[in-house]
Amino acid sequence: MPASPQPQQIIALVVRHNTAGVEEPVGRIRDFLQEAGYRVVFEADTAANLQLDDIDSMTVAEIGVQAKIGIVVGGDGTMLGIARQLAAYDIALIGINLGRLGFITDIPLDDMLPALSEILQGRSRAEERTLLEARVMRGGEQIFCSVAVNDVVVARGTGAGMVELKLTVDGQFMYNQRSDGLIVSTPTGSTAYALSAGGPLLHPRMKGTVLVPIAPHALSNRPIVVPDDSEIVVELVSGRDISVNFDMQTFTSLQLGDQIVISRSPHTITFLHPLDWSYYHTLRQKLHWNEYPTNDGKLK
Amino acid sequence: MPASPQPQQIIALVVRHNTAGVEEPVGRIRDFLQEAGYRVVFEADTAANLQLDDIDSMTVAEIGVQAKIGIVVGGDGTMLGIARQLAAYDIALIGINLGRLGFITDIPLDDMLPALSEILQGRSRAEERTLLEARVMRGGEQIFCSVAVNDVVVARGTGAGMVELKLTVDGQFMYNQRSDGLIVSTPTGSTAYALSAGGPLLHPRMKGTVLVPIAPHALSNRPIVVPDDSEIVVELVSGRDISVNFDMQTFTSLQLGDQIVISRSPHTITFLHPLDWSYYHTLRQKLHWNEYPTNDGKLK
Amino acid sequence: MPASPQPQQIIALVVRHNTAGVEEPVGRIRDFLQEAGYRVVFEADTAANLQLDDIDSMTVAEIGVQAKIGIVVGGDGTMLGIARQLAAYDIALIGINLGRLGFITDIPLDDMLPALSEILQGRSRAEERTLLEARVMRGGEQIFCSVAVNDVVVARGTGAGMVELKLTVDGQFMYNQRSDGLIVSTPTGSTAYALSAGGPLLHPRMKGTVLVPIAPHALSNRPIVVPDDSEIVVELVSGRDISVNFDMQTFTSLQLGDQIVISRSPHTITFLHPLDWSYYHTLRQKLHWNEYPTNDGKLK
Amino acid sequence: MPASPQPQQIIALVVRHNTAGVEEPVGRIRDFLQEAGYRVVFEADTAANLQLDDIDSMTVAEIGVQAKIGIVVGGDGTMLGIARQLAAYDIALIGINLGRLGFITDIPLDDMLPALSEILQGRSRAEERTLLEARVMRGGEQIFCSVAVNDVVVARGTGAGMVELKLTVDGQFMYNQRSDGLIVSTPTGSTAYALSAGGPLLHPRMKGTVLVPIAPHALSNRPIVVPDDSEIVVELVSGRDISVNFDMQTFTSLQLGDQIVISRSPHTITFLHPLDWSYYHTLRQKLHWNEYPTNDGKLK
Repeated sequence: MPASPQPQQIIALVVRHNTAGVEEPVGRIRDFLQEAGYRVVFEADTAANLQLDDIDSMTVAEIGVQAKIGIVVGGDGTMLGIARQLAAYDIALIGINLGRLGFITDIPLDDMLPALSEILQGRSRAEERTLLEARVMRGGEQIFCSVAVNDVVVARGTGAGMVELKLTVDGQFMYNQRSDGLIVSTPTGSTAYALSAGGPLLHPRMKGTVLVPIAPHALSNRPIVVPDDSEIVVELVSGRDISVNFDMQTFTSLQLGDQIVISRSPHTITFLHPLDWSYYHTLRQKLHWNEYPTNDGKLK
Repeated sequence: MPASPQPQQIIALVVRHNTAGVEEPVGRIRDFLQEAGYRVVFEADTAANLQLDDIDSMTVAEIGVQAKIGIVVGGDGTMLGIARQLAAYDIALIGINLGRLGFITDIPLDDMLPALSEILQGRSRAEERTLLEARVMRGGEQIFCSVAVNDVVVARGTGAGMVELKLTVDGQFMYNQRSDGLIVSTPTGSTAYALSAGGPLLHPRMKGTVLVPIAPHALSNRPIVVPDDSEIVVELVSGRDISVNFDMQTFTSLQLGDQIVISRSPHTITFLHPLDWSYYHTLRQKLHWNEYPTNDGKLK
Repeated sequence: MPASPQPQQIIALVVRHNTAGVEEPVGRIRDFLQEAGYRVVFEADTAANLQLDDIDSMTVAEIGVQAKIGIVVGGDGTMLGIARQLAAYDIALIGINLGRLGFITDIPLDDMLPALSEILQGRSRAEERTLLEARVMRGGEQIFCSVAVNDVVVARGTGAGMVELKLTVDGQFMYNQRSDGLIVSTPTGSTAYALSAGGPLLHPRMKGTVLVPIAPHALSNRPIVVPDDSEIVVELVSGRDISVNFDMQTFTSLQLGDQIVISRSPHTITFLHPLDWSYYHTLRQKLHWNEYPTNDGKLK
Repeated sequence: MPASPQPQQIIALVVRHNTAGVEEPVGRIRDFLQEAGYRVVFEADTAANLQLDDIDSMTVAEIGVQAKIGIVVGGDGTMLGIARQLAAYDIALIGINLGRLGFITDIPLDDMLPALSEILQGRSRAEERTLLEARVMRGGEQIFCSVAVNDVVVARGTGAGMVELKLTVDGQFMYNQRSDGLIVSTPTGSTAYALSAGGPLLHPRMKGTVLVPIAPHALSNRPIVVPDDSEIVVELVSGRDISVNFDMQTFTSLQLGDQIVISRSPHTITFLHPLDWSYYHTLRQKLHWNEYPTNDGKLK
């Protein structure tokens, strides 16, 4: 049994929408937390979507101010979505996965109550993740601004040929890239789209940002890792219908000459993991690192 | 001097538009051919764009029927465009490059008259290239059809997440692919977009079609080369704003469930090269195969 | 029950050595074949390694001349080894896999008797695979010769820095490559070492040979597929302790200036598969094509 | 003219051996430095190989203790060799390239005297590079130890099939890798062998070490960047004739079970660059980032 917490400490619950049967495990989490003395609040959208009685709910902003711990029940996408919104607040997040193990929702449903019990008693591993902040500049004025947990992606439009992007890092010209687009990724995003496009894995502790060109015209335009305190400027030189994505949020009304200025966000996200959590264990599972695809012609 | 040709044999000229100063070399080609006894006709669009006097012009279809040889002055893009249109006809094409050497426009401007002289006297190397034919099927009906010299590309829309495509080859299920899209490329196209996306080079004599996934979700979704007499069916399973490109031509009004059926075209394109032409020479020049990028730490 | 075969038709059995408990399934195969009227002979090495009574054995050469069908029980490595030796003979091979499904040993142990029954009654899919033949030339004289089912690999020695190899195809200079080595692979080998080094998959029906550089110095030295009737000459320009491998057989006493001349073997191997066999099914299983590694941040 | 230095400040010169005509530019450098008031000493091996009169020479160790600045004339290999030896000392290095621009020998011969003048007057950009330290452990005892500026490479022997390596980082099991070998690289090494094997570029300021598998059996064994304060343990699980290389130095007498323990060296190397030096400029030049290899079919 967890030790008695501070009176009325608040734990927020965020649950993936439209998941049949999710009320049962979520109900068990609530009961467990309430018995342990916590006040359990549901994020407002979650509350509106769950078929549970006596729901106590708060907006994301209220949660950010009042809760120290958030439990996210869903997949990596659910976690990404809420983590972006809560980045400015001082709250630690715990991820419970409804399906297959995720990269950042690492507690399986089967094991959730013992894991939560351990973590809430402080037997946990806190891990900080950086975010990117991107501003769209036009004629010296900022016309859009957003943050990204995974990546900022500048990409060509449908059937629109290549884009040409001019990259500048810390005021130094890097190169003009002709490609389908560019992924600017955090270590967290290095296991997502950046990986599909040929990027390396970055350990979460790396203070780096990786730039991964998508289908670059020049074969030597390879992924490059730069310090995460760099200011990266991506200027649109040519191409049509170019868009920029911040995780899953898209901004489309770009013009040639616009600059996307990307830097590390002053905020970070804190994940709480069980003590036996291992980043490499997650990689092994997600990337099938112990299964061998090719024939054994080269083996004894 | 070229030997006297058959009376009034027709040679067609196709020239890249909007190229300052192109009239001078094109004029010299015309004079050279007329002196050698040929009738020189300009493709209608070319004729409308050139500032030359006494232009004798024909439509593409007339050229296809009446001319045995076409000379294309421009870059690989100019050649691609006209080759698609002339594929159904019995005409051989010669490519003269206005700028840097191209993959399929291999005669430099400086050397054009001696090279033409040699080729027209039969001291040439004829090389046949295959094309792809693609039909868009919806509910069993064909709603669009086109050909491609380089590639047929099925790709996601702007800011639209991944597509899921179901691939079937010769009636056998290959796999469902989640990616930015799929490139189905001829050997000719293997040095273009397919190469940028990680595909292999295919020698022009290969009777193969290469399927190259663009930023595939599964790291083992590697490029695969199938016989060019295969029928490849790409079905749209999920995704938004998916488009299909045939070289540079785009068809956008696709729906989930649509199938793109790709097979080798019954037509081929014939290029005429100088006798000393070499495919590998072109690769060396275009891909900088004799320039070494990395440091010499591993070399003596 | 299989239809009665020609009197005393011979089927050869080749079994992986040192496999605990293999006598049981092999005994069942023998019994099944004998009941169906076949004479079952064991390849001599197999016979010497199996703890079975009443073994009737033949050398590989005798098998090649007298048997029309060989059954290989083991993994892809077992099949590779015997297929090389039997390539010169007119014999079709059936592969039964003792462990995980192989690329070329495609019948699982569980299903072996029904599958054999079907195949022996002619309800099978015959598939022909090409081999490479390689000759090592020094000063115009052949000093070694071998064949390969998967690949011919020219590679640097231990701690010996890069090699420089001069490649010529059909008498045309391709390029000088600086790398760890070069893999020259058949379609069969394209799922083995060549795949690990970044090569494409080649459908078994492709009449092509793929050249895959291993860790090439120049980033544009990409895999290239050439027609399998090409003569490929690899000349050793620089490097130390260079060796050449033919599947698993190694030849080490190479000198600078030596040429390895690689061409398609006049022989082929014939595999017999069950009627429902599919190359793509094998790829899906071996390459985990239906398992997705990355997070769902880009998916709805 | 450079400002008058401290009386008798020592500058060391290290020059690539066996370079015809190198005495002339080296003589000019000496004269220039002596006129500026420096004492110029030649590294002992350099002194033994140069045809210059009145050579004042020191051992590497003496240089390390007595000189604050070393000028290296040669290529990146020359710089690598001496930088390893001088890493334990407090000396800054300037690289003058005899041939094509290097990654770490960035001053061209043509521009050397003005560049040296600027740097010696303090108008320079100092840049620190990390090194790796590797110890070979057997049965708990250290049997070999070395440092590397570029990389530590564990690799299979000639014709010896794959190796299996067990990787552990900071006491956490990463995975067992089956491959040709593993490259553990500094940011400096990320433009060398690691790049050829598919690794990303790492900006020199990155506090990271990149692990790049060479031709890995599992297609998802991708390059991974870990913090450079990690302790990386590579254990030899299977394979024959395995060797480990530290830059160009090879240690071959390894046994299965041996562990190679790799960590950041406590020492660093300092390079002095002209003020207008840019890492990205070097990349652009070395990697041909402004030259486009493929055809223009996808471009307007």
